[in-house]
Amino acid sequence: MAAAPVWSVDPRTGKPREQVAHEATAEEVDRAVRGAHAVRDALADRTVRAALLRTAADLLHASREHVIEAADAETALGPVRLTGELARTAAQLRAFAEVVEEGAFLDIRIDHADADRTPPWPDLRRWKVPLGVVAVYSASNFPLAFSVPGGDTASALAAGCPVVVKAHPDHPGTSELCASVLRRAAAQVGLPEDVLSLVHGFEAGVELVRHPLVAAAGFTGSVRGGRALFDAAAARPVPIPFHGELGSLNPVVITEAAAAERAEQIGAGLAGSMTLGEGQFCTKPGFVLAPAGAAGDRLVASLTAAVSETEPGVMLDHRMRDAFVAGVRERAELPDVDAPITPGAGGEHTVSAGFLTLPADALAKDGPHDLLLEECFGPVTVVARYASTDEISAVLARLPGNLTATLHIAEAEAEGTVPGTAELLAELTPLAGRVLVNGWPTGVAVAPAQHHGGPYPATTSTSTSVGATAIERWLRPVTYQSTPDGLLPPELRDANPLGLPRRVDGRPENPAHD
Amino acid sequence: MAAAPVWSVDPRTGKPREQVAHEATAEEVDRAVRGAHAVRDALADRTVRAALLRTAADLLHASREHVIEAADAETALGPVRLTGELARTAAQLRAFAEVVEEGAFLDIRIDHADADRTPPWPDLRRWKVPLGVVAVYSASNFPLAFSVPGGDTASALAAGCPVVVKAHPDHPGTSELCASVLRRAAAQVGLPEDVLSLVHGFEAGVELVRHPLVAAAGFTGSVRGGRALFDAAAARPVPIPFHGELGSLNPVVITEAAAAERAEQIGAGLAGSMTLGEGQFCTKPGFVLAPAGAAGDRLVASLTAAVSETEPGVMLDHRMRDAFVAGVRERAELPDVDAPITPGAGGEHTVSAGFLTLPADALAKDGPHDLLLEECFGPVTVVARYASTDEISAVLARLPGNLTATLHIAEAEAEGTVPGTAELLAELTPLAGRVLVNGWPTGVAVAPAQHHGGPYPATTSTSTSVGATAIERWLRPVTYQSTPDGLLPPELRDANPLGLPRRVDGRPENPAHD
Repeated sequence: MAAAPVWSVDPRTGKPREQVAHEATAEEVDRAVRGAHAVRDALADRTVRAALLRTAADLLHASREHVIEAADAETALGPVRLTGELARTAAQLRAFAEVVEEGAFLDIRIDHADADRTPPWPDLRRWKVPLGVVAVYSASNFPLAFSVPGGDTASALAAGCPVVVKAHPDHPGTSELCASVLRRAAAQVGLPEDVLSLVHGFEAGVELVRHPLVAAAGFTGSVRGGRALFDAAAARPVPIPFHGELGSLNPVVITEAAAAERAEQIGAGLAGSMTLGEGQFCTKPGFVLAPAGAAGDRLVASLTAAVSETEPGVMLDHRMRDAFVAGVRERAELPDVDAPITPGAGGEHTVSAGFLTLPADALAKDGPHDLLLEECFGPVTVVARYASTDEISAVLARLPGNLTATLHIAEAEAEGTVPGTAELLAELTPLAGRVLVNGWPTGVAVAPAQHHGGPYPATTSTSTSVGATAIERWLRPVTYQSTPDGLLPPELRDANPLGLPRRVDGRPENPAHD
Repeated sequence: MAAAPVWSVDPRTGKPREQVAHEATAEEVDRAVRGAHAVRDALADRTVRAALLRTAADLLHASREHVIEAADAETALGPVRLTGELARTAAQLRAFAEVVEEGAFLDIRIDHADADRTPPWPDLRRWKVPLGVVAVYSASNFPLAFSVPGGDTASALAAGCPVVVKAHPDHPGTSELCASVLRRAAAQVGLPEDVLSLVHGFEAGVELVRHPLVAAAGFTGSVRGGRALFDAAAARPVPIPFHGELGSLNPVVITEAAAAERAEQIGAGLAGSMTLGEGQFCTKPGFVLAPAGAAGDRLVASLTAAVSETEPGVMLDHRMRDAFVAGVRERAELPDVDAPITPGAGGEHTVSAGFLTLPADALAKDGPHDLLLEECFGPVTVVARYASTDEISAVLARLPGNLTATLHIAEAEAEGTVPGTAELLAELTPLAGRVLVNGWPTGVAVAPAQHHGGPYPATTSTSTSVGATAIERWLRPVTYQSTPDGLLPPELRDANPLGLPRRVDGRPENPAHD
């Protein structure tokens, strides 16, 4: 049987561009995984890993014109956004090079033997070791930053794990191009190219998560696809960690005082965030609790004005466009739901942004309106108008897990002295992995303190896929007991020859005098 | 329908002692979980959590005679072992009080806003928050240290999570007693007693892991029981982390030089470790690779002599005794397997220790001998005699995941200069969470650098159930973005009023000058 072709498709026309690859057979997936597994020891040296990540960043930057052109042709995200995404992706690779060199992620803990304890303690030295081959499932909406050269790949390589990426069908050509850049970077620093390889095809993705030599997986995508792979990972004879980012509503609460103070600014800001990138961000604010009454009306008017100025845009593929059009239609038809600007089909290949409103109390209990508490991918948001803070609480209690939750407050509420403000923040915290005040959730800084994850279905684990701690997903601890210094890895030897940050006998060792 | 009674049974006779409880109905499980969930905010204060853990340790110590008597009557583990286990359990509660106070487990990272970045970074402050109600499944073989007042409970309370414990049917009376001690400790520090509650019964355990308000689970027990609960946790509409410790073979490799140097000492040490507590430790060395030839013969002779001196003993219950007797019989009947001392039934209620030997090459490929690579709970071990280091590697490559892996080497091999020694240690590392040199795996120090966990089936996650980092299982990160100082928890405020260890702008903050 001939291998199924993989076509690059132009989302601006829905027409195939060219055949760029073929779907991997089970044998090809097996070969990719075995190839990655065979070269895992080559990644043992942290210096080489840091060099790999920096070289990958350099080569990605050097290929930027070619990469951005390919990505734009396959995703219609536009050169401006893609230029930013490429810079972010390169910066992310470099940030993980720093994480690898600094070595705090090894979480080294040393307890010297203590004969005075009952029973006596032996010498114990704990650090973290790479899990093995990592399967990375690319996202549709970030052809670079959450795909082949993205955060999952960067953090897995940083951890010392070879990677097999499953390409997203929305950008197979970009994926091939990026994989070749990463493999070239490997060769340039003297590593086998098989520290990263690429497969295409839905079935290949399923084979991958079931492969006995795959030790962990990272995923960014839909609840349906992600849950199916999560279930497959859990059902294996030897289950593996599956770090999936599946979906998020990203609720926003706007206090009465905030709306009174700056309704127009909030309305315009919301319009910008929800329509950014055609509403195709996993952090799009998809659900807003705004006050009923005059201040809220001003906010809705401002939102209406700003959204009405946005041009129709092209979504990542036509299947998503159809799902968006059907999804907003189904939501708009619910009782008590209004559409100040009706979102939906734009031209033949485009969609137009819009939003829906309804009274918040319609959401306070089970019913058909629950559909509004599910993510609708694309440029739409739902504004629920509350009449009391009790209604806010009643609706928040019914929300699923989220990547983000946002609170807009007035200046006077920022001191923590206005009753109810701190409580509202405390109500949002259990709902999300990132809680924002007076900002918008789109835009995820690649910073050490970032957390991009949240209660299910935002993520299938307690991990993050952005920020320094994303590396923790691909490691497991090992403790060496009573092991002679000469047999220990240098990282765990008494003299600390590599100068790593460590906890020794329960305290940080030799804190740097800087 | 009347609730099913729960009987305390004497393992020394197999006879019921008294009815101590009844199996929890679904309604009672629901009540326990809702009760725990309702009081979760009471655990928000770390000072109170530390006080709870210390008071629990004090009250457990004060009740020691009563507790040890109850535990011995239900487990036959004997007062000496149980006195040690109670001291260890109390020390573990105190150790987690220190972990809570020190606060490094909060893993606080602060990145100040940086307008010079492209795009600019907002202010980001990350820490870890408790997951919610934790379900703890008690172990048969540690009625205290891995049961009601054990490491899972201590670490969950330390993390700020209320606990519902599912009692082990082997020690329901001890469980009731310990639960009352913990609830008393809660009341004494002004906490609601429902921060810990207890349920009995197999069905109750299944209800517990499926309950929507249970946020995570800890388990110590068999592969069969643990996997069933793991599967239930993964299959929930909202899956939850399931930290299960299921089973371990704990391989031991003895080099030719080690056997030549001290065959008698190693043989005697192995006998002591494998028969300790009737071989009912999860870290029992259940599989040994010893050299063929004269030095190995001396080792086997020493093992034979030492094991033949052990008295028959009582296992935790008669079901385990029957499983042990059947398990060793099935193994002993395999071709090429010898039993220098036949393990099996002792008296009517007891078992006698023994061990099996076979040539290692019988295990180098799939076949009926694979049974010898499965844990057999009780006082038995398997000694496979290898003729070459290639045979060691071939057998190690076929082992499942383990809690521990042990290497015995000669003095000259400890320098790291003898070819093959470091390689052997490197071969053992992927197999286990703790790697020992010249020691025995039974005995798990409650120390900060401890790791008690390992590749599946040793554990279902990458976590540990012993040591300071066990607390990480019950937490998830949350990042606050651009949140005014007055609305932040004190732990994240700029002034660091609580003096916690934090990473600020990528570096440790104000390293202590000590």
